[in-house]
Amino acid sequence: MQSFKNEFVAFIKELQEEICEAIEKEDGKSAFKEELWTRDGGGGGRTRIISEGEVFEKGGVNISEVFGKLPPSMVEYLKVDNADFFACGLSLVLHPNNPHVPTVHANYRYFELYNDKKEVVDQWFGGGSDLTPYYIVPEDIIHFHHTQKSVCDNFDTDYYSTYKEACDTYFYNHHRDEARGVGGLFYDHLRGDESLGAQHWFDFVTSHASAFIEGYVPIVKRRKEDIYTTDNKIWQELRRGRYVEFNLIHDKGTLFGLKTKGRIESILMSLPPKVRWDYNHVPAPDSKEEELINILKQPKDWLVK
Amino acid sequence: MQSFKNEFVAFIKELQEEICEAIEKEDGKSAFKEELWTRDGGGGGRTRIISEGEVFEKGGVNISEVFGKLPPSMVEYLKVDNADFFACGLSLVLHPNNPHVPTVHANYRYFELYNDKKEVVDQWFGGGSDLTPYYIVPEDIIHFHHTQKSVCDNFDTDYYSTYKEACDTYFYNHHRDEARGVGGLFYDHLRGDESLGAQHWFDFVTSHASAFIEGYVPIVKRRKEDIYTTDNKIWQELRRGRYVEFNLIHDKGTLFGLKTKGRIESILMSLPPKVRWDYNHVPAPDSKEEELINILKQPKDWLVK
Repeated sequence: MQSFKNEFVAFIKELQEEICEAIEKEDGKSAFKEELWTRDGGGGGRTRIISEGEVFEKGGVNISEVFGKLPPSMVEYLKVDNADFFACGLSLVLHPNNPHVPTVHANYRYFELYNDKKEVVDQWFGGGSDLTPYYIVPEDIIHFHHTQKSVCDNFDTDYYSTYKEACDTYFYNHHRDEARGVGGLFYDHLRGDESLGAQHWFDFVTSHASAFIEGYVPIVKRRKEDIYTTDNKIWQELRRGRYVEFNLIHDKGTLFGLKTKGRIESILMSLPPKVRWDYNHVPAPDSKEEELINILKQPKDWLVK
Repeated sequence: MQSFKNEFVAFIKELQEEICEAIEKEDGKSAFKEELWTRDGGGGGRTRIISEGEVFEKGGVNISEVFGKLPPSMVEYLKVDNADFFACGLSLVLHPNNPHVPTVHANYRYFELYNDKKEVVDQWFGGGSDLTPYYIVPEDIIHFHHTQKSVCDNFDTDYYSTYKEACDTYFYNHHRDEARGVGGLFYDHLRGDESLGAQHWFDFVTSHASAFIEGYVPIVKRRKEDIYTTDNKIWQELRRGRYVEFNLIHDKGTLFGLKTKGRIESILMSLPPKVRWDYNHVPAPDSKEEELINILKQPKDWLVK
């Protein structure tokens, strides 16, 4: 098997630069702070955190590249034989100040397993991106989904509906019977086969990742100066509670990271900065807050007219 | 087997009244709001929530009494045959405004299983109480532990160290390598046998529960008017983040409740009202905040001089 290791690492390094630059430009006040870390056993990462910005209250755009012997927990998790592995990816979460600007999450990753001769014996791509608004602005959500669909349609016109549905299924707070947000794309274990080589998935995932800025930044630009009230902010902090619940109760990546003693602060950088839990908060009937809940109860197809 | 169902239910009903009265008196401003709920399949509860008080920012003192056929998830969890069950308990969490007043949690519960003839074939008690301070005040922590030990010593001089250690082991944030708080008592599956009947454990658990007010309220009284700064409050909100992490990642009761579709708002009433996650917050060297972390890294015996 042909390795995509070097190409994918080069790609995410460059993408981290581009995204951080675009986010800093949009923020206008704060700059990302960088931390380099190394992993016992092989590899490390470049964490970049923005906090207390004009537009972004907290966010991280991180890359990592880890390798070595699969730890026992990963052998069990991946259901593979003990082997050497390589994994790399870019992971980001951005929590804006303004409740009219949605939170966004994205992840693009690549994995390789080796035999004793250090030949690649398995490889796959995974990732996705999804939007978590606090108020429903159809124009913004449609723009986000339209960007995802445009990328997909360049590869296969079935991909958008497949990965959109996977996203709605995955980012779901089962204990609340509601989606975390309004979705996007989610895919994993994208492997090459006889008809479509791994190159196809490399192209697909890197195209999707390259469209991140186009999908999100125009929404930020449009909404970042919208007026908001204290009640809007309280609502955002309550909804951020649901984000925390998803990440700590259901998110496989987070739980896997915590159980395998990953770098805690890099894993939990996804948690929002200020969060509220009020007992049994129920939005007023026919309010904008209730509209959001109703949408999250029944994920919809944003691109059907 | 003799059933303790009626006695235990009567006991927790009365205890809920007493604790709520003591807490309201200490608060001086807010009153508990009561919600009665019923469970599909049998039983229900009486939830009492205090919020935005003078002393207590958020808290709940809840009782419930549920029965019927064991749901499949509980059959699996308890590793028993499918059967009729009865469970009741009092559960409380209090989150004070003032960072110098510790958060407290307590739970006292009783469980019965029946055969086809509706005879009790298994029964056990469980529970405990533990303290989560934001700043270390040895006098307060010693008072709390001393109360726990006094109750234990009336039954068996080994109980305190056994259940104190179980508490330190259970309320531990493994992913952070630190305890949730400074401990207390934790016990489960307390069953009668030939030498000690179930009556012994009924007496022990109800004695422990009856000492709740004596263990906690004097600490509130002493600290509730202590001056605090914005930085103290930020520290409290950051530490509350660890409380959320424990309850959503590690706490078996919470996860069991969520997975079995329990009453979400009653389960998650334990979550603090306002919480922060700052990226990689590290207390200043030799600060009071660092002192707390150091204590939580290595649970200590508070009653050794």
